[in-house]
Amino acid sequence: MIDRLAVVGLGLLGGSVAKAARARGLARQIVAVGRNLATLEPARRDGAVDEVTTDLGRGLAGADFCVLATPVATLEALLPAVWQAAADGAILTDVGSTKARIVAGAERLARLRPLRFIGSHPMAGSERSGYGVARADLFEGARVILTPSERSDAAALERVGAFWQAVGARVVQLDPVGHDRAVAAVSHLPHLVADALVDAVVRMEPGFLDLAARGFKDTTRIAAGSPTVWREIFLDNRQALGEALAAFRKSLDHLEGIVAAGDGEALEQELERIKQVRERLG
Amino acid sequence: MIDRLAVVGLGLLGGSVAKAARARGLARQIVAVGRNLATLEPARRDGAVDEVTTDLGRGLAGADFCVLATPVATLEALLPAVWQAAADGAILTDVGSTKARIVAGAERLARLRPLRFIGSHPMAGSERSGYGVARADLFEGARVILTPSERSDAAALERVGAFWQAVGARVVQLDPVGHDRAVAAVSHLPHLVADALVDAVVRMEPGFLDLAARGFKDTTRIAAGSPTVWREIFLDNRQALGEALAAFRKSLDHLEGIVAAGDGEALEQELERIKQVRERLG
Repeated sequence: MIDRLAVVGLGLLGGSVAKAARARGLARQIVAVGRNLATLEPARRDGAVDEVTTDLGRGLAGADFCVLATPVATLEALLPAVWQAAADGAILTDVGSTKARIVAGAERLARLRPLRFIGSHPMAGSERSGYGVARADLFEGARVILTPSERSDAAALERVGAFWQAVGARVVQLDPVGHDRAVAAVSHLPHLVADALVDAVVRMEPGFLDLAARGFKDTTRIAAGSPTVWREIFLDNRQALGEALAAFRKSLDHLEGIVAAGDGEALEQELERIKQVRERLG
Repeated sequence: MIDRLAVVGLGLLGGSVAKAARARGLARQIVAVGRNLATLEPARRDGAVDEVTTDLGRGLAGADFCVLATPVATLEALLPAVWQAAADGAILTDVGSTKARIVAGAERLARLRPLRFIGSHPMAGSERSGYGVARADLFEGARVILTPSERSDAAALERVGAFWQAVGARVVQLDPVGHDRAVAAVSHLPHLVADALVDAVVRMEPGFLDLAARGFKDTTRIAAGSPTVWREIFLDNRQALGEALAAFRKSLDHLEGIVAAGDGEALEQELERIKQVRERLG
């Protein structure tokens, strides 16, 4: 049981953390910290949080569990102030999509003051953003990746894992760098590819889009994601994304080569192999 | 009103043509032609068709309206036999995903015998295939592209268009080559890209797939499509696909360049522009 839960940043993920914690009675008190009172007020009015503030110091005062839910770049810039404002003994986690830099940043700060930070990445989201689309059940059945390092406190890791399980998530662990490589492959790469697909069709002939059916729409749905959020994810994880793009180009060249050579048998074999992999994902 | 409707190939599309025509009473009699009686029998039992046969000549005899619904390569190989078997005055159409070659093939044959062929491409489908997933409402609200050429018979074009409208489709027209360029961009390119995404992640590290969430699944859903069907589409439309791939690579290079340069402002602008295009698709 959390006594005072502070959620910093009340968008889709932060808002859903507050709503889920409230719905399941995981915290005696919930406070939301944000830049703009007007965007925080709806959460106070609907009862998801008890208190709203734009003052980080006031929000974190007395909070034993803090979830940092701002976009990734803001998060890194915010860490020193969080470290100054947080209560002694506080457990900190986040919801960022990249982990190597934030974990390294937290560990640098932890040498100055021993707060306990465990990186979290809930694999739940939407192409829509903002508190208006936050849901108490967003994490139900979703995977949350915890990214402890060798220096992480075992009790804090346990409590952060228990929190995510309590809101319905399935928790797995990866080291921060391994996490970033994995999400570059299954999340950031498909996102940039979807962006490039939309861009390519527009550059070829905007009228072609009139013929887009369900296949094109599904494949490019994530290209409608928040530019602010994705700008930061792409930049933050650019190294791992570069590796994933190189692998993707190799696969695309390979498949295109088979098509260009007119080798129907090899093509069908590759498509069959890929179909089987994809079908296992459900 | 059609007197005798022949559907050649009773998979998802051919089966849905038969079911839709039956449900809306568009034909007095419906006959299905296929390679294998056992896969045709369910359609006779459930009443979607009146007659099934593996004999093209018997199926097409007396049919005033024929829908060719085999996979693309089979279709091209089948055309001469169709031309021989079809009744005088018959109107022929198809459901193939590529149109330049089939229309050219039909026009070559039409010089020998003046049958009236109008290419059709219903933009409706599924990653699943076979009569078992055919639906009477598959074409409702779907776009069907008709691809008449300068030589096409106006009355036949009118009747084929009316048929698709009668099963609920929205009919548009494109010339055969323009059609192939457009579907290369909005259908075949995303498909090959989805295949390459799945392949790239498996080659990087199969375990990464355990972390795939909704974004990856949506983006790669079409990679579970039928290898037989897609082999033929890719090979048949390889030239237009090559052009679309070149445009895609240019867009991907462009976006990757901005990410690699760390130019957050330019990146956000591009993502915002792409998001707006994607959102207009709904």
